[in-house]
Amino acid sequence: MKPNEKPRNAFYAQSGGVTAVINASAAGLIETARQHKDQIGKIYAGNNGIIGALAEELIDTSKETARSIRRLRHTPSGAFGSCRYKLKSLEQNRREYERLMDVFTAHNIGYFFYNGGGDSADTCLKISQLSKQLGFPIQAIHVPKTVDNDLPITDNCPGFGSVAKYIAISTREASFDVASMCKTSTKVFVLEVMGRHAGWIAAAGGLAADSQHDIPVVILFPEITFNRRRFMAEVKRKVKQYGYVSIVVSEGVKDRHGKFLSDQGLVDAFGHAQLGGVAPVIANMVKQDLGYKYHWGVADYMQRAARHIASGTDVKQAYAVGRVAVELALAGKNSVMPTIVRTSNKPYRWKVGSAPLSRVANVEKMMPRSFISKDGFGITKRCRTYLEPLIRGEDYPPYKNGMPDYVSLKRQMVPKKLKQAFKIL
Amino acid sequence: MKPNEKPRNAFYAQSGGVTAVINASAAGLIETARQHKDQIGKIYAGNNGIIGALAEELIDTSKETARSIRRLRHTPSGAFGSCRYKLKSLEQNRREYERLMDVFTAHNIGYFFYNGGGDSADTCLKISQLSKQLGFPIQAIHVPKTVDNDLPITDNCPGFGSVAKYIAISTREASFDVASMCKTSTKVFVLEVMGRHAGWIAAAGGLAADSQHDIPVVILFPEITFNRRRFMAEVKRKVKQYGYVSIVVSEGVKDRHGKFLSDQGLVDAFGHAQLGGVAPVIANMVKQDLGYKYHWGVADYMQRAARHIASGTDVKQAYAVGRVAVELALAGKNSVMPTIVRTSNKPYRWKVGSAPLSRVANVEKMMPRSFISKDGFGITKRCRTYLEPLIRGEDYPPYKNGMPDYVSLKRQMVPKKLKQAFKIL
Repeated sequence: MKPNEKPRNAFYAQSGGVTAVINASAAGLIETARQHKDQIGKIYAGNNGIIGALAEELIDTSKETARSIRRLRHTPSGAFGSCRYKLKSLEQNRREYERLMDVFTAHNIGYFFYNGGGDSADTCLKISQLSKQLGFPIQAIHVPKTVDNDLPITDNCPGFGSVAKYIAISTREASFDVASMCKTSTKVFVLEVMGRHAGWIAAAGGLAADSQHDIPVVILFPEITFNRRRFMAEVKRKVKQYGYVSIVVSEGVKDRHGKFLSDQGLVDAFGHAQLGGVAPVIANMVKQDLGYKYHWGVADYMQRAARHIASGTDVKQAYAVGRVAVELALAGKNSVMPTIVRTSNKPYRWKVGSAPLSRVANVEKMMPRSFISKDGFGITKRCRTYLEPLIRGEDYPPYKNGMPDYVSLKRQMVPKKLKQAFKIL
Repeated sequence: MKPNEKPRNAFYAQSGGVTAVINASAAGLIETARQHKDQIGKIYAGNNGIIGALAEELIDTSKETARSIRRLRHTPSGAFGSCRYKLKSLEQNRREYERLMDVFTAHNIGYFFYNGGGDSADTCLKISQLSKQLGFPIQAIHVPKTVDNDLPITDNCPGFGSVAKYIAISTREASFDVASMCKTSTKVFVLEVMGRHAGWIAAAGGLAADSQHDIPVVILFPEITFNRRRFMAEVKRKVKQYGYVSIVVSEGVKDRHGKFLSDQGLVDAFGHAQLGGVAPVIANMVKQDLGYKYHWGVADYMQRAARHIASGTDVKQAYAVGRVAVELALAGKNSVMPTIVRTSNKPYRWKVGSAPLSRVANVEKMMPRSFISKDGFGITKRCRTYLEPLIRGEDYPPYKNGMPDYVSLKRQMVPKKLKQAFKIL
């Protein structure tokens, strides 16, 4: 930067499905950037993700108090709004990139921070190439976030630890419930969890049991083809031994034809397709084959929004990747993503590293087969060693009248400078 | 009690659906009884509720350490096992009562503590009448417990405050999630909660919004007949205004023919009946009528087992009714139930009173119409004033390796004294 030149502003956006701790990354990023006002001017947040940039709807985070930004650390979901929108390649939709450059130029934006998962890493990579391909000076840094834990290179993804903790605790608690009821009533509890491709979240159900809590859990992973006969044999065995069983089923479980179990082709009385979850399907199968009384739950948004029981490790890491994203930008980096590097298991130690986006975008990290027990229904010791530190620590939000006190930001918009509106196609 | 006479033992059992705090009542009862060994001998807990008494399966709680009993206070579900089993009247099934008297006599049991809801109050009432009708000396005290909050006389039921807190928090958190996503994705989130007859739990969803959290919530109460047209108009109105809406639906919602909405008569590809929840039904209706993208969750056992976010008020009250049950017994009472008496709203103050079981059994307390807003989709200020203190306070369990550390008891059985086994019919 030349003397007397105005420092470039930064653009920050949240992308894809939100998590309990994505706002902690926002807090880490904004608080760190505010400490370097000589190098980073204002931080403009995209109103609803990248769409905010295209539409020139920029939230001026400098209008938010230090207290509000601090409170983001304990507030779930995306405080600036998120979106599901993937930029096409430069060749396919040059119009979008030109618009972004217009907006970035108009608002003196030289830093692009994108907080998301695999798709967002791809968008961020494309933006980072603007500097090379179109000669536009921008540094694009991806801030990792996804409950699915499927980003490569990084040991784990911020957002995952908290959903894992929620699922592990819910499975333990519901198991205590079924255990109380199983003598005369419910013997099988089915919990449906997220994870359409990778079974990381389902695996967390395995943490319900430990040396002090002997709980029978059967996990259905998307990585393992569903086999009704083998599954029923396992359920029956567990019920015979314990009197009950808890089943944690990933929404992405498929049969041997590659069809989602949740896709049962049900129609209601009016002939309308009924889109159900996989939990009732599994529960009904158990009833048909074994006759056990069941209950089922679907954790859906509750699991990824459950800031009230967020993992302490997760909150710290989410904040840290936000902080390091700014540090990487200040160091002149482009097209990179901060990563979590595990340096030791016992005691658990980690640091933040970084990886080039070209190695991150469009790569999905599946559960290693060595993390799934031989029979396909549980987790191995290696998996447990991996998962346990990620759910450690309780980072409780403050409460008011019995309710968690989450912040809602002002979201004050930066005045538009461009004459033309942009139509999102 | 005559001098040198051995004090009579007590029988304690947990009944019906369990809660996050029923074990806190057990802790209050056992810890208090242990302080009065001159008057109450041992406390025998029924293995799986009243069935334990019939089968002469008595758990000797004196074998549990003081630490284990203390840990019950933070452990969800029924540590001694529960059951769904209702005694018939003396005229209809004298055999059962005779068996109970045999077991009570054999084990010198003079106190009967039954920890449950409406059905259990009825069982307890019947037991209490043994002394009169059959000349058997027993004092029967009912300890209130039910997530449904539908017992009469008592201001509220232990167990309810914690499920209400869980639903209120989950609704707030999921609403933050939908709010982040609604620009390009999900606009409607549907959460199914318990309460087949009374809408107390659904009402708690209304606490998601407050003066600091402007959240659009539509509640479907079992007390209000479902009207699809009016409901859709309300959903549309909220989505137009906020961009999204959260719907909290009671499992007991019925249409104008008195039929459960969840009972859609669905059959799968094999012609088997599919028992679904009401959440997917509502979600599909919204999609059909308004075209909004939705997500839905079913809180099921998670809501009533969620000791990790139990209400501080609830834990205190659950413990207190256990303690007072013993005090009532020591005062020579029979056929009564400790009640929660609200003495002040601001500040919230309560004490424990008592009510005769004859006024409690078989009476169901519905939501007053004055607690439901005129349009039928929300709660009134009166309802909020009633609910708020019940969810106040966080009573966190201890954690180990990121997981709540719940106790599992030894459940050591008292040697049987009766020669005959008893067949539960």
